[in-house]
Amino acid sequence: MKNIIIASTSTVHGSGYLEYILSELETFFKNANNILFIPHARPGGISHDDYTKIAKDGFSKINKTIRGIHEFSNPVEAVKNAKAIFAGGGNTFVLTQQLYKNELIAPLKEAVNSGTPYLGTSAGSNICGLTIKTTNDMPIVYPPSFNALGLVPFNINPHYLDPDTSSTHMGETREMRIKEFHVYNTPPVIGLREGSWLQVRGNNIVLKGNLKARIFEYNKPAYEVDAETDLSDLK
Amino acid sequence: MKNIIIASTSTVHGSGYLEYILSELETFFKNANNILFIPHARPGGISHDDYTKIAKDGFSKINKTIRGIHEFSNPVEAVKNAKAIFAGGGNTFVLTQQLYKNELIAPLKEAVNSGTPYLGTSAGSNICGLTIKTTNDMPIVYPPSFNALGLVPFNINPHYLDPDTSSTHMGETREMRIKEFHVYNTPPVIGLREGSWLQVRGNNIVLKGNLKARIFEYNKPAYEVDAETDLSDLK
Repeated sequence: MKNIIIASTSTVHGSGYLEYILSELETFFKNANNILFIPHARPGGISHDDYTKIAKDGFSKINKTIRGIHEFSNPVEAVKNAKAIFAGGGNTFVLTQQLYKNELIAPLKEAVNSGTPYLGTSAGSNICGLTIKTTNDMPIVYPPSFNALGLVPFNINPHYLDPDTSSTHMGETREMRIKEFHVYNTPPVIGLREGSWLQVRGNNIVLKGNLKARIFEYNKPAYEVDAETDLSDLK
Repeated sequence: MKNIIIASTSTVHGSGYLEYILSELETFFKNANNILFIPHARPGGISHDDYTKIAKDGFSKINKTIRGIHEFSNPVEAVKNAKAIFAGGGNTFVLTQQLYKNELIAPLKEAVNSGTPYLGTSAGSNICGLTIKTTNDMPIVYPPSFNALGLVPFNINPHYLDPDTSSTHMGETREMRIKEFHVYNTPPVIGLREGSWLQVRGNNIVLKGNLKARIFEYNKPAYEVDAETDLSDLK
């Protein structure tokens, strides 16, 4: 049975790395002492080692050990053998390119669909959707495809931001961008605000955290859903 | 001789379409009464016809006629025969995909390098750079390449936004995104604020408008340049 947390962000303002969600993660990872970390999104371009150290420090608070997938000579085997997986945030294009390059797309799908607990934050959440076409990231590398893991039947927009009505900036708002997505694509998009996450258990999908999320469906006006809303039928 | 205007935006806050730059465009297009418009970036997903109407209305104020490239049965010939070209803003991925699909990349390069005056705004400016890897847009379609027209030896970041120091949002600032670009790429990036443009005449490139621009070079701290700065040596 699928067991996934798809989080908008690793860190909420004024709080430490993963702090806001740590008690949830303690339960989520209760059967795994060791977590396989995917550092490929490299936030700010930091090294795989440096990023893995951040994840190690964060998870040490709930007594989990972390090992970066880059430390394994055979990353595909590392995914197959993992007791739990965490893909951290950073740049979604870089992450996606690296997953394709290391031939990890199919093994990750298989592992997570078979029940290996998976935590994604930000870029690590984007790749849970059907495609990465609703990422906010800059396309600094060219991946061989925008198709992602498709662990859920919609797309994620992490770090969802409401329009700033006081802004004089003429660039598109997030809502405008997602509406443009629906000119060319039909899957729903969940705008996850920082502090929200989706809890996926089998085919059951629930919005968690204290915030509402914004849902964008093809040919429908966008709408808000409360925390604890069951989103299992969204497709 | 190349003759290009690379503008951050079509519209500045509180002003009409192209209004802030109209007197400049009157001079720039003095030898062309008819301008070929490329509407493929489709801002907000509007149709090619609707977008072309906006450009027509804008340019009617300086007595120019506009024809959309989609109105021609042979768009490659339309580019070859154009007296002047304007590529409007919208989604850079959509624009790029359409240019590849319509086999317009090489003809556009050739026309502009041979002296056909070219105006780009926003997405139409992004494609003047080496690649579209520094666009702010959402990757709602998958183009066959991120390589762009390469009319200048660097990349453009239009609608450049300074970090909002009061924000509690945890997403990356524009500066952080461009720094991440330089982890994987070496060309310089010009962050063009709304109201700025680059004037390209042959190999001479000058920053125009009233604002400073922010320059990001590989392995160097970012720096500001004043309006009228000669950027011809940036590569």
